[in-house]
Amino acid sequence: MKAATAEDKRWTRKHLLGLEELSADEIRFVLDTASSLKEVSTRSVKKVPALRGKVVVNAFWEASTRTRTSFELAAQRLSADVIDFSESGSSVSKGETLIDTARNIEAMGIDVIVIRHPAAGAAELLSRSVRCSVVNAGDGAHEHPTQGLLDLYTIRERFGGKVEGKKVAIVGDIANSRVARSNVWGLTKLGAEVMLVGPPTLLPRSFEQLGARVTHDFDSVIGEVDVVNMLRVQFERIKSSQFPSVREFTSMYGLTWDRFQRCKKDVFIMHPGPMNRGIEIQSDIADGPQSGILQQVTNGLAVRMAVLYLVTQVGG
Amino acid sequence: MKAATAEDKRWTRKHLLGLEELSADEIRFVLDTASSLKEVSTRSVKKVPALRGKVVVNAFWEASTRTRTSFELAAQRLSADVIDFSESGSSVSKGETLIDTARNIEAMGIDVIVIRHPAAGAAELLSRSVRCSVVNAGDGAHEHPTQGLLDLYTIRERFGGKVEGKKVAIVGDIANSRVARSNVWGLTKLGAEVMLVGPPTLLPRSFEQLGARVTHDFDSVIGEVDVVNMLRVQFERIKSSQFPSVREFTSMYGLTWDRFQRCKKDVFIMHPGPMNRGIEIQSDIADGPQSGILQQVTNGLAVRMAVLYLVTQVGG
Amino acid sequence: MKAATAEDKRWTRKHLLGLEELSADEIRFVLDTASSLKEVSTRSVKKVPALRGKVVVNAFWEASTRTRTSFELAAQRLSADVIDFSESGSSVSKGETLIDTARNIEAMGIDVIVIRHPAAGAAELLSRSVRCSVVNAGDGAHEHPTQGLLDLYTIRERFGGKVEGKKVAIVGDIANSRVARSNVWGLTKLGAEVMLVGPPTLLPRSFEQLGARVTHDFDSVIGEVDVVNMLRVQFERIKSSQFPSVREFTSMYGLTWDRFQRCKKDVFIMHPGPMNRGIEIQSDIADGPQSGILQQVTNGLAVRMAVLYLVTQVGG
Repeated sequence: MKAATAEDKRWTRKHLLGLEELSADEIRFVLDTASSLKEVSTRSVKKVPALRGKVVVNAFWEASTRTRTSFELAAQRLSADVIDFSESGSSVSKGETLIDTARNIEAMGIDVIVIRHPAAGAAELLSRSVRCSVVNAGDGAHEHPTQGLLDLYTIRERFGGKVEGKKVAIVGDIANSRVARSNVWGLTKLGAEVMLVGPPTLLPRSFEQLGARVTHDFDSVIGEVDVVNMLRVQFERIKSSQFPSVREFTSMYGLTWDRFQRCKKDVFIMHPGPMNRGIEIQSDIADGPQSGILQQVTNGLAVRMAVLYLVTQVGG
Repeated sequence: MKAATAEDKRWTRKHLLGLEELSADEIRFVLDTASSLKEVSTRSVKKVPALRGKVVVNAFWEASTRTRTSFELAAQRLSADVIDFSESGSSVSKGETLIDTARNIEAMGIDVIVIRHPAAGAAELLSRSVRCSVVNAGDGAHEHPTQGLLDLYTIRERFGGKVEGKKVAIVGDIANSRVARSNVWGLTKLGAEVMLVGPPTLLPRSFEQLGARVTHDFDSVIGEVDVVNMLRVQFERIKSSQFPSVREFTSMYGLTWDRFQRCKKDVFIMHPGPMNRGIEIQSDIADGPQSGILQQVTNGLAVRMAVLYLVTQVGG
Repeated sequence: MKAATAEDKRWTRKHLLGLEELSADEIRFVLDTASSLKEVSTRSVKKVPALRGKVVVNAFWEASTRTRTSFELAAQRLSADVIDFSESGSSVSKGETLIDTARNIEAMGIDVIVIRHPAAGAAELLSRSVRCSVVNAGDGAHEHPTQGLLDLYTIRERFGGKVEGKKVAIVGDIANSRVARSNVWGLTKLGAEVMLVGPPTLLPRSFEQLGARVTHDFDSVIGEVDVVNMLRVQFERIKSSQFPSVREFTSMYGLTWDRFQRCKKDVFIMHPGPMNRGIEIQSDIADGPQSGILQQVTNGLAVRMAVLYLVTQVGG
């Protein structure tokens, strides 16, 4: 932790809203901080007193297992107190605005609001209305920066510290994916080459403006990539006009056994979870030796510890 | 904290059920205790070990953001453990009685039950059935004593320690409001003059028996009051026979800009939240310099810390 | 706690899945450990640092007040961190498998998963998929081992340490009851004589194979038993073809006042809760001096502390 304090000129942000706004150096600094914190989770006593007496509020306006639990564990591991503020049972159902709710939470003397919200821009809106730190845990189809950071961390770890020059395919419903967006920002800043793969209805050409290659033909790139990051098919969000059927999706964009065998020998397989086994990813591949899926979860905790730690070190 | 222990003859109650039963001196003692605890929330490490190893159970049979969160934070700040016991997922849905549930919770060795319940008298009923402390967090239309106390705290703070002689208007649906009731008891005991303002269907004359003035004409008193406490319009509870329309409510009883300008220059504006902006209160006024609305929230935490602390100091 | 460490050859299990698999000596060892931990709950500071920095996840796929709260309090009392993972708001609603969910939770570095699940065998399935400890908090109609242990603890305590030779009647819907099953295993291993009592549709003869006596006539055994353990009538699970009416159930299998008077003078009355007062048990009996119902709740906490402590002492 001393490294972070001594070098805190490297981190001056009170909020983490997205990866678009971060510099490559800032991203590397979060990953380095996560690296030094990851070891805490392997101890018998999985706790450091870094944030003792601080309060983190999980304000989730969308259901989530992993992300909410991951932030809660990350906060606990830093000895912070955590309050869960979930939609049901809250004033939100009484028609209160997001900002009123947040201001009220803040008036109780809390240090960080971790927000997940269906509206793009919700985290930023919040950060302009409160004095405490805001961490974006997913805002609509905009960004999910801690997912982007944990994916970067996992790729960096897998390739001995080097992200630059790696070819990363992100596959699926790109248009609706905040995970894809945060990954594109992060990966390109660190010098990776990103290929976005998906059907035209779910992957507009405009994504090239983010600095990524866009292709609708998975098979044309499958043999050249170092990393395949399969997105979850969100049936509930995809309209029937956008894709004919699940079976067709799997046959064109699923990571099937056949496709996997045409990958590079040391290809690294990722998925943000929760998986639809047998749909976007074959079960054996997800559980196989080249899968980094559970490492992503483990690293997510370290990344979130780093983020909570860093944003709370920045004064008013 | 020593003051409390040394002077504990000033507080001998194991439960906080309502303000009706408290003496002026008891109320002042809670406010003084809150005052000495408020500073904890401004520390970097927002925690004192006062209730370490004690267990507080939040038993809420009605949804609530602020109150539940406020109690949870208050308990954490005193280093107590907090268990959340919410209606859904509980035995209540299996038809168990309130008292059976409470006795079972108590048998697990807990120290305080904080109860919110739709039935007036639920907290008192509970207090006669269990040996642990009971704190009423709102029972039907009966009382919401910690809200009353935090309102008193905020008024006292605003007027340099003096509540006596202040004129306080409480405006809106008085008949259904436990907030109003607890405020009337507390304010009159401390020597304030209370005016209850609302339509005849929501404010029976019988409220005069509580020691308050009753008026159905907001404009007739607007110029003379030191404090305006606007209640939330609870659309879900008001029957259409009781009031013609929201628009008419606003025009007759809302704190509009026009009405605000006819107030005393240093009038103090309060609202227990969550607000219906533009209905019972104009948005600009709520966010303006004379509004104490967020201070109420901040003080609520200190008051709840004081209450949890005091009731647990009283033996079996 | 030293006793446990010194004699840890007496406990070598990483998981607690059921009482069927435990030896009499293992059961006695859990009860002895619970006995030494029970005193913690009577202290002013109800906390020991035994599991500081450990993480317990409550993963409940079925609603429960007591069991979930009891485990949460037990973990807190040992200074563990507790994460609540309830069905709603989780990835389960997104169709994720039990095992994927559990592996993901585990990848976050947790020590114990306490699982309640509607499917018999869910806890065992989980234990084969994760490296952390698994504690069964009820799996379908299979087992509820901590309930069995707390019932044993309460009987042992009531009869001065002696379970052997006691006659215990378990009454009600035996076929669907994991509580009955765990009790039968535990009681017979410790040398008690178990009588299962219920209507033929809810109590097949095959239960004799577990080593219990089976009878459909409550009155024929009422006078000879030392303990009557009344199960909850689960209206929601019993089909109308299995029993004609609630009234008839009460008249044939309820613990009425009349039946109670035909019991032994020092008969001990138990119920796992929540009770249907007036249906399977008369209210006065439940609250009377021979009832151990609230002691069961108190002992449940001690037993769960013991279980959480013991399973986490067993290495990888």
